[in-house]
Amino acid sequence: AAANVYNHMVMPTSYGNPLGEYQQLINGVVMWDVAVERQVALRGPDALRLARMLTPRNLDKLVIGQGKYVPICNYEGVIINDPVLLQVADNEIWLSIADSDIGLWASAIAGAHNMDVRVFEADASPLAIQGPLAIDVARALFGDWVDSLNYFAFKQTELNGIPLIVARSGWSKQGGFELYLRDGSRGTDLWNLVAEAGVPFGIVPGAPNGIERLESGLIAYGGDTDNVTNPFELGLDKFIDVDQAQDFIGKAALKVIKENGTKRRFIGLKIGGAPFTASTETRVDVTLNGSYVGYSSSYGFSPRVGSNIGVAMLSVAAIAASGGLEIVTEQGLLPAEVVALPFI
Amino acid sequence: AAANVYNHMVMPTSYGNPLGEYQQLINGVVMWDVAVERQVALRGPDALRLARMLTPRNLDKLVIGQGKYVPICNYEGVIINDPVLLQVADNEIWLSIADSDIGLWASAIAGAHNMDVRVFEADASPLAIQGPLAIDVARALFGDWVDSLNYFAFKQTELNGIPLIVARSGWSKQGGFELYLRDGSRGTDLWNLVAEAGVPFGIVPGAPNGIERLESGLIAYGGDTDNVTNPFELGLDKFIDVDQAQDFIGKAALKVIKENGTKRRFIGLKIGGAPFTASTETRVDVTLNGSYVGYSSSYGFSPRVGSNIGVAMLSVAAIAASGGLEIVTEQGLLPAEVVALPFI
Repeated sequence: AAANVYNHMVMPTSYGNPLGEYQQLINGVVMWDVAVERQVALRGPDALRLARMLTPRNLDKLVIGQGKYVPICNYEGVIINDPVLLQVADNEIWLSIADSDIGLWASAIAGAHNMDVRVFEADASPLAIQGPLAIDVARALFGDWVDSLNYFAFKQTELNGIPLIVARSGWSKQGGFELYLRDGSRGTDLWNLVAEAGVPFGIVPGAPNGIERLESGLIAYGGDTDNVTNPFELGLDKFIDVDQAQDFIGKAALKVIKENGTKRRFIGLKIGGAPFTASTETRVDVTLNGSYVGYSSSYGFSPRVGSNIGVAMLSVAAIAASGGLEIVTEQGLLPAEVVALPFI
Repeated sequence: AAANVYNHMVMPTSYGNPLGEYQQLINGVVMWDVAVERQVALRGPDALRLARMLTPRNLDKLVIGQGKYVPICNYEGVIINDPVLLQVADNEIWLSIADSDIGLWASAIAGAHNMDVRVFEADASPLAIQGPLAIDVARALFGDWVDSLNYFAFKQTELNGIPLIVARSGWSKQGGFELYLRDGSRGTDLWNLVAEAGVPFGIVPGAPNGIERLESGLIAYGGDTDNVTNPFELGLDKFIDVDQAQDFIGKAALKVIKENGTKRRFIGLKIGGAPFTASTETRVDVTLNGSYVGYSSSYGFSPRVGSNIGVAMLSVAAIAASGGLEIVTEQGLLPAEVVALPFI
């Protein structure tokens, strides 16, 4: 078993069998305690006004029941979090955040602009069920209506009296659901209900999987990003609407960045050498003909690609070059070639 | 050995002998890698203006070379960090922060008010030497001028070409210094120089000590505080100047809190039962005649007090009561009595 700290909380990262958890995620179903995905709640008449100030994404068509991935940038256009936004009521919006104190950021903006909105951490702790059989577990728990949930759609419901939001989401590309527990005292009850419903489908406990996320090209905010990363470097162009009428933080800076183009880009790497035994999250240098051209933030062996793979933030020139890339790994200097994300 | 995550970085928390590290801190000298005390730098013409917006402490007499403990509150008067502020140049101020992303908070305030200041994380990583013999190690490293540094005073200098700020500070009450390493590539060099200079004084590696901090009544932001804690509850009254001419965030709220008085207070507990084998940081309930009256955020056995001790946030009524307090520990329910902080 292994754990890490995320949003000031302990997060389980493995139950002792990383490869087994990977295989179950790809072929079966896994359950993850992702309570560390904290919910920054914006409640009050100005909740939507604040949310629209916070993200470059166009929220003209936001509706209750449909989540949206909303990069958040600072005034310089640097990404500072990439939550999923859920409008849970007319006057209440949640940001299901990655690992930075976006509650501080949001309450500073609200306070500085005298907005009529309260920013607080909601009592909500997601439990994810992920994998091709997650739909079967969800049907067993909630009934067939879960089939009608589109990607990122959510619904408020309950399970044996436990208040929940059920969302079709999760930090993998294998499909599944996140059950936002809305009563922190019922965590063990919920865990046991899901585990029991999952028995016929071979459910096992696990955690967001380092290899699957590399294969799928998912962004790990904080891991893959640094303190100058902008959303265009990450390929998030479609979520950044600098032409909307709405003002938002970073609009001027992002306009300039978009016009000038980016000098780096987040990209995949196929890496030589013997198969790595585990994925690593330690940042290492990438070189082109011996000169530094960027960093790789995670790499490991992909059973489905049949090769070592990684993600990296590299100069556009290095990405365009043909050959000569190397990565400084714990196996030593290894050859690498650029591959578009996702791998699969 | 043990470690934790603090400000998104790994922090060593013990080198395997907690009691030995405690004894050396009390009687000798220890060295701590506290690089996790990140430095939020405010640089530009509005650096001081921003700093004064951020803290309720009166900074009328701030000078280069003298650090100040500056609680930071949000618009509701809730404490969100308690850094040491260092003015390092006319237009540059550092906040040596506890575990929350105050860089986000500060840059949101700066941006919302169109201030001419850049907020960023400085390349600065403190190494602390603490204990009664820390002065001897500092003299050996830097010379006798270190004697002239008052508490929280600091000076820019270098050591074998390593750029440093030397400050008389540290998260213990045993005296000592913090060496702010200003070139991240020289960390091992600095560590080795300090270790070598400390040999005649028996220096050992260690970490901020759970027992000593309880005895000394030091506040651990995030550990001891919750999302409604105000500085008056923590006994920080002397740092909160709601009558100064300067405006600052939380001024109106803190005025009201001060006028109304607080309902809880941070206090010491003397705890019965067999000596705990280690200090714990798990939050537990405290009851008065069986009813919840607050929480204890840390407790352990104090060799110098000769008893189990702890810190707690308790209702003023419970503090005033005579007898009937109990604390829910891993040993079970134990009797507790209120003691003023610090214990020693």
